Amino acid sequence: MRRQEFQIDQPEELESFLAGMTFGFLGTVDGEGRPRVTPLNFVYADGAFYFHGSHAGSKMKDIRSRDAVTFSVADEVALIPSYFTDPSLACPATAYFKSVTARGRAETVTDLAEKARALSLFMAKLQPQGGYDPITPEDPRYRPQLKAVSVVRIDVEELTAKFKFGQNLQEDEREAVIGGLVKREGARDEETIALMKKYCPYHSS
Amino acid sequence: MRRQEFQIDQPEELESFLAGMTFGFLGTVDGEGRPRVTPLNFVYADGAFYFHGSHAGSKMKDIRSRDAVTFSVADEVALIPSYFTDPSLACPATAYFKSVTARGRAETVTDLAEKARALSLFMAKLQPQGGYDPITPEDPRYRPQLKAVSVVRIDVEELTAKFKFGQNLQEDEREAVIGGLVKREGARDEETIALMKKYCPYHSS
Repeated sequence: MRRQEFQIDQPEELESFLAGMTFGFLGTVDGEGRPRVTPLNFVYADGAFYFHGSHAGSKMKDIRSRDAVTFSVADEVALIPSYFTDPSLACPATAYFKSVTARGRAETVTDLAEKARALSLFMAKLQPQGGYDPITPEDPRYRPQLKAVSVVRIDVEELTAKFKFGQNLQEDEREAVIGGLVKREGARDEETIALMKKYCPYHSS
Repeated sequence: MRRQEFQIDQPEELESFLAGMTFGFLGTVDGEGRPRVTPLNFVYADGAFYFHGSHAGSKMKDIRSRDAVTFSVADEVALIPSYFTDPSLACPATAYFKSVTARGRAETVTDLAEKARALSLFMAKLQPQGGYDPITPEDPRYRPQLKAVSVVRIDVEELTAKFKFGQNLQEDEREAVIGGLVKREGARDEETIALMKKYCPYHSS
């Protein structure tokens, strides 16, 4: 990452962010060497990302010919207007966000037990309230479905996180942004202020 | 697109969706032939996407060597639990979303007037309340900044939209999902119901 001040290295921060996000964007390269980007629900567990889809999907075709993939997840927490810190110039306008990017190798999961485990993790994340029978390859109602669905595991080679919450600001600019957010009272502005304080380079040690 | 029932062809639907979304994901291919995915604020105008960044950014380097890019924007409107339509199996669990994907060629904008125009569109979209002086290359306060920032225009070759709101459901399943959403009363469930009705293949003509 070029801007070191925005880099986050604590694994628990990354995991907590990924657990709270329901979808991300898969980058693959197609047969003509062009990038493809596909939004997908995902689960992150044991150092790997899992997603599922149809065997016939274009992304699956890409992966079969080139297994190098990227997966990116981002959450824009606040738009910061220029006038929080500058009364006349547009330049300071920016966005505060969290993003995590994984580079790795995609592998199609063929083992039915691993498929069932991955889809169970999916359900636990996206439907935590339950309301379904456990997914197992032994269950004759699930077995054909497990065979029909394509499950892909991304083995992560590099995982980077960029959380941008004003770490590059001078103290007076930071105070001005916090003041602007307090006044604006947007739905996520309190959360933004808390994140600015949490990641402030002057206050961490 | 493989699943035709989810495809949206009306340009005004795409434009209205893109106008309401603040960020998307750029797909590029790096020097080693690996995909890179970068979340970015964007503006879509006159059939092109614009984004900006630092000349030194990795995505800019990718673009200079290969101009074929993809840009994807997605909004997940609702998670649909399996039990809305099936009391025991997890299989029907899904997400309803809107996504737009553009494939095209990225070109670095060097003309200061076009840069100023693109950044003005950015500000009009992301800071519609104003509060800044107009961005022009003649303004000596903006001119050095316009030179320093890198602005990229993606000339779109192919634009596709996938809006998934139960178009594949049978009438009784559709009623069951709507019933479940009415009962759940999530923040965006009313919106989801309206979109299900809007895109229902039985009700459009």
